[in-house]
Amino acid sequence: MADRTLSVALVQRAVSEDRAENRRATADRVREARDRGARVVVLGELFATRYPCQTEDPARFALAEPIPGPTTAAMSTLAAECGVVLVVPLFERRAPGLCHNSLVVLGTEGETLGLYRKLHVPDDPQFYEKFYFTPGDGGCLVCPTPFGALGTLICWDQWFPEAARLTALAGAELLLYPTAIGWMPSEKAAEGAAQLDAWRTIQRAHAIANGVFVVSVNRVGFEPSPEGGIEFWGHSFVCDPQGVVLAEAGEGEELVVVELDLSRIEAVRAWWPFLRDRRVDAYAGLTERWLGGSRR
Amino acid sequence: MADRTLSVALVQRAVSEDRAENRRATADRVREARDRGARVVVLGELFATRYPCQTEDPARFALAEPIPGPTTAAMSTLAAECGVVLVVPLFERRAPGLCHNSLVVLGTEGETLGLYRKLHVPDDPQFYEKFYFTPGDGGCLVCPTPFGALGTLICWDQWFPEAARLTALAGAELLLYPTAIGWMPSEKAAEGAAQLDAWRTIQRAHAIANGVFVVSVNRVGFEPSPEGGIEFWGHSFVCDPQGVVLAEAGEGEELVVVELDLSRIEAVRAWWPFLRDRRVDAYAGLTERWLGGSRR
Repeated sequence: MADRTLSVALVQRAVSEDRAENRRATADRVREARDRGARVVVLGELFATRYPCQTEDPARFALAEPIPGPTTAAMSTLAAECGVVLVVPLFERRAPGLCHNSLVVLGTEGETLGLYRKLHVPDDPQFYEKFYFTPGDGGCLVCPTPFGALGTLICWDQWFPEAARLTALAGAELLLYPTAIGWMPSEKAAEGAAQLDAWRTIQRAHAIANGVFVVSVNRVGFEPSPEGGIEFWGHSFVCDPQGVVLAEAGEGEELVVVELDLSRIEAVRAWWPFLRDRRVDAYAGLTERWLGGSRR
Repeated sequence: MADRTLSVALVQRAVSEDRAENRRATADRVREARDRGARVVVLGELFATRYPCQTEDPARFALAEPIPGPTTAAMSTLAAECGVVLVVPLFERRAPGLCHNSLVVLGTEGETLGLYRKLHVPDDPQFYEKFYFTPGDGGCLVCPTPFGALGTLICWDQWFPEAARLTALAGAELLLYPTAIGWMPSEKAAEGAAQLDAWRTIQRAHAIANGVFVVSVNRVGFEPSPEGGIEFWGHSFVCDPQGVVLAEAGEGEELVVVELDLSRIEAVRAWWPFLRDRRVDAYAGLTERWLGGSRR
């Protein structure tokens, strides 16, 4: 069997208010990843801007960019320069009044391999994403690359087993989750450990259920807001198809480069053949909102 | 709000070859659970018999029983005696040549509240279940009881997020997983820790994804076979709707009784409103076997 080794890089950064500086600093990390042998480099959710959704402010739609646009153009040049596959999440302006939380997958010659628009959009205190982002209408995305089949999802998607399953069934070998998740200072002491552990646990479970690698890339740093701000918790990690964590970052800026043996997918699925036993004849209810009580 | 406290008991046992003795010893544990305040008592998968699937032996179909039958009759009397809801998994003979890996939920007056037939049936070395058990054709089960809405699944089901989701959407507040899982002596040293951790992780993830409690009841002890036997690993556990483990047994016989605050479900779902954001319009592919490549 051909060598199925893949070196993947996770760029965990604190994000400033200066978009040009974010792009420049990120580019330095991508070059460093290339120097360390990475072939696929994954940036965090909305990598070029502070997390814009802590309040609902119409002026902040000015942060959105078309695709292609200035950020994808710069990152495309960078991907070609480094000869890496680059996963670039950004605030997409699709049309006036129609924006998405999106990512593009750029190939080693700078070409666009795919565009994914976040399917599951949250709306919680300090995460007012439904104000800004229309839920994606393009379904899941899998990009075949010379280095492996990349399935891309974004942040809130990670809480939905359906998204992981659909992407794995479409042939993904890795699920990539650019993310911006953190603690509210007011609840960190009481809830912080359980929240972080739940976040790690559910993504590890997607690896297990689907026999794929999971790569989750979060940001770090404190970003203030009138409601108290968010302390982004970092802990970007990679786990194997059994859910074993292969590498995990801390709570500061960090470039994680991990070598994956993609042949593990076939080995693990041979022992845990879950895809064989799915009861597709019994799953029609999964497209319903609720099945209890009055069935309404 | 009414008190939503529920005391649930997990009967983790080593199973002998003597069915009458298994029933008698289990009954003692159920009475002990009642004495300790339990209102719902969950037995392990196929509680009355050694795990029958380590080899394919037609003679072993003689272990199967009709429902209702001697075991359900005895357990029904016990449930009424103790005034508990009792979850009784057994090898069901539905018709000649048609058997299931099933469970019944018995009410506090001994009445049958529901019958569930395992949807996902494994077949792996030393777990030759497809020889014995027809996959259930009755879908998922939720039993409303005075103590909470019980969703019942069995063992291999626990690796399928679809089963957890369907049961939660049908109104379950607890997912109960009677189980018989263990290590093969030949692979325990190399794989045992990762296997146990994956098993715990994916079930905790079902709790998180669905905002429900999970109660998983395994057996213990070594059961020999010509292929090397199985060391059932125990570690029965209960976790809350955030995936926090509230209690976990060791690797010997144990009666675990835990008090659950079911009002946590509503509180956790208010902060993590995943059911609100499911993209049911995008999930049609979940009823397909495979979506990659040729889409065949």
